[in-house]
Parts: sequence; C-alpha cells; structure tokens
Amino acid sequence: MVKPAATTAEYKVIGTRPIRHDGTDKVIGKAIYGADVRPAGALVGKVLRSPHAHARIVSIDTSKAEAMEGVGAVVTGRDLPRSNPDQVVDLVEEADQARFMRDNTLASNKVLYRGHAVAAVAAVNAGVAEEALEQIDVIYEVLPPVLDVLDAMKPGAPLLHESLTTESMGEPTGRVSNIATHIRFQKGEPEVGFGEADLVIERELRTATVHQGYIEPQNAVAQWNPDGQVTVWCSTQGAFGVQKQLASILKHPLSKIRVVPMEIGGGFGGKLSAFLEPVAARLAQKSGRVVKMTMSRPEVFEGTGPTPGSFLRIKMGAKKNGKLTAAKAWMAYESGAFPGCAIEPGGISMFACYDIPHAQVDGYDVVVNKPKSRAYRAPGATQSTFATETVIDELARALKIDPLDFRLRNASVEGTRRIDGLVFQAIGCKETLETVRDHPGLQNRPSGKNQGRGIAVGFWRNGGGQSSVVASVCDDGRVDLISGSVDIGGTRASVAMQFAEVLGLRAEDINPTVGDTRSIGYTDNTAGSRTTFTTGLAAYQAAHDVKAQMIQRAARLWDVDENEVAFRQGTFFKTDDPSVSLSFRQLAGQLSKTGGPVIGSASAQPKSGIGGSFVTNVCDVEVDPETGKVKVLRFVVIQDAGRAIHPSYVENQMQGGAVQGIGWALNEEYFFNEDGQMANSSFLDYRMPTAYDLPPIETIIVEVPSPGHPFGVRGVGEASIAPPPAAVANAVFDAVGTRIYQLPLRPDRIWKALQSKAVAEAAG
Amino acid sequence: MVKPAATTAEYKVIGTRPIRHDGTDKVIGKAIYGADVRPAGALVGKVLRSPHAHARIVSIDTSKAEAMEGVGAVVTGRDLPRSNPDQVVDLVEEADQARFMRDNTLASNKVLYRGHAVAAVAAVNAGVAEEALEQIDVIYEVLPPVLDVLDAMKPGAPLLHESLTTESMGEPTGRVSNIATHIRFQKGEPEVGFGEADLVIERELRTATVHQGYIEPQNAVAQWNPDGQVTVWCSTQGAFGVQKQLASILKHPLSKIRVVPMEIGGGFGGKLSAFLEPVAARLAQKSGRVVKMTMSRPEVFEGTGPTPGSFLRIKMGAKKNGKLTAAKAWMAYESGAFPGCAIEPGGISMFACYDIPHAQVDGYDVVVNKPKSRAYRAPGATQSTFATETVIDELARALKIDPLDFRLRNASVEGTRRIDGLVFQAIGCKETLETVRDHPGLQNRPSGKNQGRGIAVGFWRNGGGQSSVVASVCDDGRVDLISGSVDIGGTRASVAMQFAEVLGLRAEDINPTVGDTRSIGYTDNTAGSRTTFTTGLAAYQAAHDVKAQMIQRAARLWDVDENEVAFRQGTFFKTDDPSVSLSFRQLAGQLSKTGGPVIGSASAQPKSGIGGSFVTNVCDVEVDPETGKVKVLRFVVIQDAGRAIHPSYVENQMQGGAVQGIGWALNEEYFFNEDGQMANSSFLDYRMPTAYDLPPIETIIVEVPSPGHPFGVRGVGEASIAPPPAAVANAVFDAVGTRIYQLPLRPDRIWKALQSKAVAEAAG
Repeated sequence: MVKPAATTAEYKVIGTRPIRHDGTDKVIGKAIYGADVRPAGALVGKVLRSPHAHARIVSIDTSKAEAMEGVGAVVTGRDLPRSNPDQVVDLVEEADQARFMRDNTLASNKVLYRGHAVAAVAAVNAGVAEEALEQIDVIYEVLPPVLDVLDAMKPGAPLLHESLTTESMGEPTGRVSNIATHIRFQKGEPEVGFGEADLVIERELRTATVHQGYIEPQNAVAQWNPDGQVTVWCSTQGAFGVQKQLASILKHPLSKIRVVPMEIGGGFGGKLSAFLEPVAARLAQKSGRVVKMTMSRPEVFEGTGPTPGSFLRIKMGAKKNGKLTAAKAWMAYESGAFPGCAIEPGGISMFACYDIPHAQVDGYDVVVNKPKSRAYRAPGATQSTFATETVIDELARALKIDPLDFRLRNASVEGTRRIDGLVFQAIGCKETLETVRDHPGLQNRPSGKNQGRGIAVGFWRNGGGQSSVVASVCDDGRVDLISGSVDIGGTRASVAMQFAEVLGLRAEDINPTVGDTRSIGYTDNTAGSRTTFTTGLAAYQAAHDVKAQMIQRAARLWDVDENEVAFRQGTFFKTDDPSVSLSFRQLAGQLSKTGGPVIGSASAQPKSGIGGSFVTNVCDVEVDPETGKVKVLRFVVIQDAGRAIHPSYVENQMQGGAVQGIGWALNEEYFFNEDGQMANSSFLDYRMPTAYDLPPIETIIVEVPSPGHPFGVRGVGEASIAPPPAAVANAVFDAVGTRIYQLPLRPDRIWKALQSKAVAEAAG
Repeated sequence: MVKPAATTAEYKVIGTRPIRHDGTDKVIGKAIYGADVRPAGALVGKVLRSPHAHARIVSIDTSKAEAMEGVGAVVTGRDLPRSNPDQVVDLVEEADQARFMRDNTLASNKVLYRGHAVAAVAAVNAGVAEEALEQIDVIYEVLPPVLDVLDAMKPGAPLLHESLTTESMGEPTGRVSNIATHIRFQKGEPEVGFGEADLVIERELRTATVHQGYIEPQNAVAQWNPDGQVTVWCSTQGAFGVQKQLASILKHPLSKIRVVPMEIGGGFGGKLSAFLEPVAARLAQKSGRVVKMTMSRPEVFEGTGPTPGSFLRIKMGAKKNGKLTAAKAWMAYESGAFPGCAIEPGGISMFACYDIPHAQVDGYDVVVNKPKSRAYRAPGATQSTFATETVIDELARALKIDPLDFRLRNASVEGTRRIDGLVFQAIGCKETLETVRDHPGLQNRPSGKNQGRGIAVGFWRNGGGQSSVVASVCDDGRVDLISGSVDIGGTRASVAMQFAEVLGLRAEDINPTVGDTRSIGYTDNTAGSRTTFTTGLAAYQAAHDVKAQMIQRAARLWDVDENEVAFRQGTFFKTDDPSVSLSFRQLAGQLSKTGGPVIGSASAQPKSGIGGSFVTNVCDVEVDPETGKVKVLRFVVIQDAGRAIHPSYVENQMQGGAVQGIGWALNEEYFFNEDGQMANSSFLDYRMPTAYDLPPIETIIVEVPSPGHPFGVRGVGEASIAPPPAAVANAVFDAVGTRIYQLPLRPDRIWKALQSKAVAEAAG
C-alpha cells in the first residue's frame, strides 16, 4: 500500500473543487429519476395498507377487484412464495430474515403497523387502481398494539411475532418475546472502574422515531418477461442490494434480475431496502405488463423505514482530575415491526470517542407496532451519542472542568481499544477537539442573555464492503469510468478524481457512469460512508491497471522493453532518453495501432484500515424563555475526513448531517396516537429544519490520513449526524441551565423545564 | 493461439442452438428500439429535403419558420462548423471526408441529389414542424443532373463538385472530374495470359441502384446539456462509429458525446452512417430541448444510402482444358453524390474465387446525382461477382465443360495469391463446390420445360477491427457479459456461447448486454462480418481472464499455490487431489470471501488470419416465356462458416443474404426519372422479395476452420449476397437459353431477349 501524502498540496486533482460530472443534468432538470421512467403501456400499481397498527388478517377477498375492467393483476402476501426450489439465495442461513423481508413486503397472516402493505393492484391508471383497492375486502381481527420500547419488553406485553425468540450474544435463547436481540460489549471490569471514580452520574434518556426525509419518494418500474428475465428501474442506494432482496423475496434466480438504479433524490440509509420493487415485479409477472409504482409522502412516512426511537440508561464515572474510569449503558431500540440493524453500531459508537479503561454496553433490539426501522445515517449512533455526550457534559461541569478540556483529557487516540475489541489505527478524534480549542474563529463564545454554547463529539466506524470499477480509454485521451456505486452525494466526482490523480489527468477528462447490475461487477450499497473509500480504492487500482497497459503500448511503439518506459505527471517517456515521450492523450490516440482498446478494471474489498471518522460540533443557541423555542445562532462542524478528495462535497456531507441532527434535536418526531396511527405524515406536520430555521452551517475539515487508503481517505457521510442533538442540548443547558433528556427538545419540554426550575429556585 | 478443434463434437456449447438471449424481448414486443425512446417534453425534428437532383443554393431564409410559435430551433448547413478549434478528430488527415460528411448531413452551397437534407426544424409536434418546413424559403439555381456512371465520366459532364480531383492508386492527380478514385489491382501479365488462352470472352454488364431495405427507418433522439455533454439514442450498427461522426460533423469533443445504441431493426451496412443524429444534436443544442427525429420510408429511400449502380466490362481467357489463363476488368461504380466505399472491395472480390495466373482490375468510383451510396452487405462484391460468374458460365459452356467442374478446376485454395497480394490461408472455396458435386440432395436437376439450374460462387474477405468485452461473475455463477457490438443477427448469443465454452458454462448462464459508448471500451461497428469473429475472440480472452482469476481464488481457499489448481469442464480442482474441487458456480459463491468480485476483460484486434468466407449457390428456376417472369423453384446456399457457433443464426445469415441477392437479381432497383427523382420510394413500388415470392432457402454449412480464431470462426454475414444474381442469371440461361447482362432480370428484359432470340432463330 502506498503511503498517503502528508498534505493535499502534493496532489494535482485531489483537494480541488471541480464541478461535479452530474451537476448540469441535475441543475437543468434533465437527470432521469425513477419517476421519469415511462414505458409505453405501463400499468399503474397501488398498495393497500393496513389501517391498524396490530391485527390478525382473517381473510382477504380480492375477487371483486380482480373482476374490474382495467385491472391487470392483484397481489397479496399469498403471491410471495414460502420456499425456494432453486435455492439461489442461501435461505437456510438467513431463513428468518428472508421471512421478515417477505412479510414486510406484503403481510401474510398479521399486520404489524399502520401502513403495512396488505395487497396491491395494477391497473390502467391510478384512478382505477385506487378504486380497485377499495374493492378488496380484508377482514381484520384487531389486536392491542404496543408502541413503546419499554412497554414492549414487559412480560405480558402484546406479542408481535408468536415465533420470535430472543437471540443473545449471537446465541438463540429459545425465549419468545418482543426482544429480538440482546448484545453486550465489554472491556475491563466496569464495577472496578466505578469503584475508582470520584464522581458517578447516571441518567435515563429517550430519543424519538425520526424519518430520513429524503425528498424523492420510493418508486419502481418492473418488467417481467416470459423467459424469466426481470428488469426493475428504481431509486435505490444499491442496485445489487435490491437484486439480492428481489431474488430472496420472489425466489427468482439472482442474475435473471436486472436492477437499473436511476438518479436518487436522497436516501440516507432509507433506500437500501426494497419496498415497491418486489410488488411491482410480481404485479408485472401476473399481468404480463410493465408496472410502475410511486409512493405518496404519507406512504413514505408510514410504509418505509424510519430510525428507531430509543430508551437509554447510562452511567459514567470519573476522577477529580477529569479522567474517566468507567462507563456502562443499557439501551433499548425500537426496531419497529421486525428486527432491526441499529443496536450493534449504536453500542459500538457509544463510548468510541473516549479511552475508558472499563466499560460495558447492553443493547436490546425490540419489536414494536411501528414501521420496521431502517438505517438512517450512522444508524444507532445519534441515539447513543446523545446519551454519552450529555453525561460527559454533566461530569465536566460537576468537576469544574471545561467540557472541551474534559473531552481532550479522555479522547481516543491511535492504540485505544474500542469496546468491541478493535484497536484504533491513526484517528482524528483529538485533532477535531484541538481544532475547537485552537481555531481563532471559535474563541468568541455567545454572550447574550439566554445564550449558550454546547459542544459534543461523535464517531462513526464507516464500512468497507466490495466495489467494482471498469475504465475504458477513449481515443481522445479521456476515460470512461463505470462503477456500481449509486451517486448520492457526489461520488461520481470523488471516485473519478482519485482515478484522474493516478494518471495525471483532469477530473473533467473522466466520464464517470453508474452501472446497473448487468453492466458492472458486484458492488455493495452506497452506504456506511464506504463509496469514496472503497470505490475510490477500486478506481485507484483500475487506474494503475490502465497505466501498466499504457506502458506496454508505449514500449511497443518505441520497440523497447516495458521496464524501459516510465510514467510521471501524465507523461510516458523512455527512461534512458526522457526526450522520447508521449502524453497520456497522445498515447491514447495510438491504441488502435498498438493492440486495440485499453480497458482497466479492479475490484476492491478492503478488510482493514477502513478508518472511522470523528466529528466535533460547536453549537451556539439562544432560548426564548417565554416559549421555550431554541434558536440556533451558530453551528460549526469539525470533522476528520482523512483526506478530503473534493472538499465541497465533504463540507456538504458535514452540513447535511448537521442539519439532520439538528432536526432530531429540535423538531422531528413521529406522533402516534394510542392506536398506533401516525398523526403527522406530511412535510407540513412533520417538521424538518429548513433554510429559514438555521444559520449557515460552518465547516472545518481536519485531515488525519487513514493509513488504509493510498490517499488517506475516510468516509465522511455519516459521522456528522451523531453529535448534533447532544451539542444542541448542551448549548441549551449552557444558555438557560436546564437539561433535557428527551429528543426532540420541543419548546413545550424546555418551557416546562424552565417553569420547574423557576419553581425549584423560588422554593430553594 | 489454440488450434481449433477438428469437429464441433469436441465442444459442449459451440454448435448447439440455444434460444437467443434477446429473443423473448423481441418476440413479445418489449425490446426497446430508438422510436420507443420518448423523453418527456421532447421536440419533434423534421428535415427539409431538396426537390432537385442538382442545384445551387442561392439563399435560404429561415426567419419565418424561426418566428413561428412552437418552433424551438431551425438549422441549416451554416450550423455545421467548418473548422475544429479543438482538433479532436484529426481533420488534417481526413479533411475531404469530414467535409463530405458534413455536406451530406446538411447541404452547404449545393444540393447533389433529390432528398439531400437542406434544413431541419424542431417544434412542439410533427404538425408544427412540417408547417415550419414549408415556411423556409430556399432559392435554388437548378443545374442539369448526371445520373449514369458512364455519362458522369464523360468530358464535359455536369460536375458535382468543383474541387473534386481524382485520386489514382492513392495518389492525387489534380484532375477535376466526377471520378473520385481510380484503383488498379494486378497480378502477372494479363496480355501474356490472354495470349495463352484458347478462348477469350469479353462482356459488358450493368447493375442497378438497390436499397438495403431494413424494416426500421433511421431515428435519433438527442440531448445537449449546457456543459457540453451530449447524449444520442439511435438505431445504428455501431455506437462508436456514430460517436466519431458526431465529433467530426459537430466539431465537438469525442468523449463528451455518449451514443446509446438501441435495438436495431436491420442495417445491412446502411446504418453505419449518421444521418439524423448530428441534425437532432444541433437542434437540441440550439433549442435547449431534447429532440426526437424519425424518418419516413420515402426519406429512407431518398435520404440515406443505397448500393452503387455499376457498369462492368470483363474479359476472361481459358485453355481448352478449362484452366483460366487471364482475366481483366474495367469497373465503374456510382458512388452517388459523394465518394463511396465499394470499389476497392468490389475489385478484390472480383476474381478471388479463382486461381488465375494473370489478372488486372481497374476500378472507378464516380459521383452522380443520386444519394451517396453506402455499404450494403459485402459492399461492391455482388456487382463484380455478377460479371465474373456470368462469364465463367459462358466459358465453361463454350468449352463444353460442366460449369461446376470448370469452377473446381480453377478454384482458389490455400496458398492462392489474391489480386491485392494477400495469400490465402486455409479457405473453403473448393469445399463448397465439392459439396454441390457430392451432396446427395443436389443431384436431381430440374427437368421441366423452361426450367434450368445455375450455379455461382462468391467471396467476401470479412473484417477484423477492434472489440472490447467485460465480464462480471455473479454470486450465483452466472456471468454478465458486456460488449460494444450492436446485435443485429444474434451476436449476443454467438459471443456469449464462445465465452461459455471456455468456462464450461451453459449459454443460458451468460447475460450478454450491448453497451453504450460510456459503458464499454471502444468497439468497431457490427459490420464486415466481424462480430462473431473479433468480439467472440475478445470474449474468449475475457473468459480466460476470468478463469485465471478464479483459479487464484480457489488457490486462496485451499491455501495452495495457483499452479496447484486446475480447471476442466467447469470444475476447479487440486491437481494433487482432484477430490478437492469446486464447480464454477460454487466458487462464484465464494468470491466475496476471497477478495471481492471477479471482473474479466479483454480487447481484441486481430491483424491476420481473419479468414474470408466463400459461398456457392445452386439455383433452379422456371421462366414463363409468355411474360418473361422468373420463378425461383429452389435455392441452396452452401457456405464455409469456419465454425458455426450457433448454426441457426449462420443459416439465417445465409438465407438473408440469398433473399437479398435474389432481390437484386429479379426485382429491386431505384427508378429515376430524367430529373433524378425517384419514382418508387415506397415498399409498394420498390419491390423486395417476400415469403410469397420464394421457396424455402436451403442451407448447407461447410466448416473449414479459420486458423486465425481459437474456435475456427469465419464471419458469415455478407458473402452470401455475392453470388445470387449470377446464379439466377445462369439458371435463366440454362432454362431458356438467353443471357441477360443487366440487373435486375426484369420480365420485360427477359421477354424482349426471348423475342430477339426467336427472331434470330427464325432468321437462322
């Protein structure tokens, strides 16, 4: 592995800010999204959703709908097969998961949340389809729902799944309950650590169910040919992921399914799962027609996958000198109707910023009658970081140590062992905190009345996964670069730039394209902050492959041995006579005379050195004591990017995560009534922060190169959402002296807290 | 290079007849053709065409059209730039050709044929666009046209191009005339050879202007973004060819142009050239909108490129023993309005079937006021073969030697030197003739009144070119295979089968896809019968690349050295313990655990051993002496395929070429009035053979493996059109004793010849 350069100054392309390749398409409205796919003669598909949060399906009668003129097909859970004769996907290993996936796609014998898909219709137009939905008779036996994670864990709670048994530490327990999973991480002996502490603080905190809020609703267009070849166009973070899910849910051979990822209007983890795709495909098969489906906004809120709401109990101990001695947490996440994915990364993130000798995390993934939770930007980390960073703030203040200084004394560094056993390589936790300490622009604290500053630090581990890249050299010296990575936040540019850097080309010389499942090798989802890292690594390797082939061609032209040709700064030359040279472009024009086209390819699967990312937030707020409303005065994100390939898109990720985290902190939550019905399933009622609500988000990129990447890249897409709620809460405390342990920090909660505080102070 | 197997029996996939991968899509009407591309908000483009065969453009006033409501843009020749500041395409080298391409796209100062594009409009719908065309005022100064090749060569003939100077033998002569090119091929001393002959026959022959008659008219959809990125969807035989033409005509950087080849409804050489594509692109740029254009059938006839009509003078000499001693030809081809491409291959094909010690060909490519001629299946060979095979038949009969035996005595074999200097490697000329001699099904000659049998043999040299292929191994052991070769006649199947053969897979295990210019490396047109040969070769190499990588993975799994792993018949195994083994599919499922996806790639550019193909026809006819109408009773095509990868598609090519050749022979021709206007520009009036007109075309595949290909493949797409006109004409002579020297053999020509013969016999 090449060692990353010490500074970006050593690079020509990396660290610059070229216009992204897909920018014009998107700005002028010519980028093609899933809803723009309009095959001639397509039927329109619509979904019938459960009006109940919990009910048994007694019967479904679709005969009237099927008989309607203009209806092409009706499907229910009965149309999703139980077994796979072809055994294409290894169902033995993942039997439960396959069943859950299927039952969430179309309910089988129970509905588990309001909005759960029960049936679907394909008809000649939306009107007929909706009318047909009304003609489907479903008889439900309504059951009491359980909506809160602690309620769901109680003995005697309504059971969502009669056969769900708890898995503890990876082992089946045989106990039937709503607890899907129990995990435990431990290092050292927490009780010993607490014994050494001069101060121990224990708190209980809660976070709400929050949606990713991507602007583009889910959509899918499906064609199913009589020869079994299936094509699905959709909005997804990963075409190969959808392909796998379709193979499992439809029990259809994997590579007979072609998934074409269209442009994506946001995902944030919420577009990893297939919702409409398998339904559209089955409707297409039954009707023999192409079927197109799109979700409405209420369907997105009620029928896709928000983040888990959570309950956290946390206890931390420190000495008077500010050194942490022990930490312990008990956390329970609402996975929604089926087991979730956030508890393990939530647990790993919880104490990752600190070098604590003794620590333990117990985590519970618990099913409740809400939509099945899905990944949402650093899944699980925002919840646990809110707890940790609140208590850290309290410990520091109680010990009369500046909260920033307190964090610096305990910050994780290279060599720190994480609670799950991983030992950090070079990381930038301390460096982001030191930036807050030293940056001249961060020395002025807010000084007005009811104003305050909060800081918080967060971590995300990032993913590696697998990526494939193919590069073709054009006659004019430009290069067509195909990857399997869906471009959500500018990865066409960040991947192309790494390719260009190796070959001394400009970013504009590369034409990056996102392939479908037939046009590029297997590539994991654009998720886990892995794309610029791993797909970039594949591009780096493919560029070296191209370079080696081009050297062969130059050698052929000059009739010398390959090792007599060298390449530097975009030019091939003879080592013994550098005046004999050809630029990359000149040599590209000679390919047809020297053996034909040059195609470079690579697949990357980094197993180590992926390099997590740390983020520190500085948040200044002013609280209106009359209403309890919080106004964010200033918000600064300081993040370790390892190496910022395209600084603008790094900054955009930092800003995006911050804004979403502020949404968690102040506004966003699902309101459920007691029957489990969501009361605010529109963007009018579900309040996300807008540009009117926030100041410009400031960004400071820190670069501690990741030793696992030739350019030092760290994924930056997720970590920035972890600390904002804690930073905001700490700032609120700093401003008005009340501490809120529940997200969001709604005006009514702050106002009530201020009232209680006033009463207490008056009484005191 | 691996030596091809002696018989197909050694292969598992090659030589079988699996269902083609694109079959279902095409049969059920879901294949997506250019006209199926319907972007939202697209404008409709229409072309204004010249009503004159030859005229100077005095002025074009587009102001009224431009001012019309609903008109997005109007373009004329002035919108195609004269120079290329970017110098992306090397215009110095091909200045004339670039100018001719541009002027044929939209006329500059002259129109050179009726139907020549003069201007184009993009408007909100076809009605407005057509109305706008009527509002364009063009003032012409009408000039006398020249429509016949011999007239055009005369001194004082109307000149099409005032600056066109004849190039002779590759050297400029400086002489301004309608003769674009003169070529000469020679071997030995023809006059010496004629001196040795016992019999010399000299004849003059003519062939007509004929269209390829593809069922799908030309179409193009173009998008031009403000950042200069251009996307064109079209029906073409080669996306990269269109990309190059667009770069040259529009003077736009090559790789900023993405060409997406849609499914193609026939091409036969006629869809190598861009007609609508540059016009649609320029209209899109000027209007800022997507523009869609499609041709009507009259536009296809008058505005695209038929085959050259020709005049041929031929002289051949032989000894009494039937050995040819000398041959000489003088041929002039009507290239149409701009220089053509058929004269050189026509000259090379002319005597290629025979081992003649002394021979010479003089060829002239001559511009006339007809649409610029284009490639049409074995371009130039059908014309010249008609001449050669007519005279060979006459020589044999005059010398009282059976025409088949006469051909066998002179047939080209391995080692024969072609007139252009190439020495044949293993070829199957003699073998196709021997099949006629020996095949039990061909011994019964027609015996009825006015019935007769004709035979003829023809040759096509085939092309090599460049092809790129990328293969990705899927988890379930299937393989996605992308090539840049447009699939006209089943090459998805023929290329995939070669790939499958190497890896012990089934044809159905391969998902072949046709890439666009951004998604695969440079690949030449599907033309010159090169695709199954060269793209197949690239697939063969890519399969070996995959195999090598898979062996590495198996070695990693088994913790042994790579050279301790072997592969046979689809299974990887340890050489020292073959019981330790994994099937391809099993190993494919292990890729994510052994280093990530496997992508194989290859580009092929064969420089020798391409291996031409020979075809012999046996044609039985009956002539109606009352009307002169010829009925084809039986038609047999015997062709050397080297190795028939998918015999059905080889047979289909043989049948298709035969039917088209019979069309040339009996029916097809452009009727021009004396002003140069085509009088039969519809499929009702331009008479192509239909299933009602013909018997089933019988096929016999001969396999003389090509030494230049690991499976012995020879391209088969073109040679089959060369001999049919001669075979039919020889059959007509055999039936009724009259010889027709002009195509097509229309009833009136035969009837008149019969009348003359009767008069002569009565007089005799």
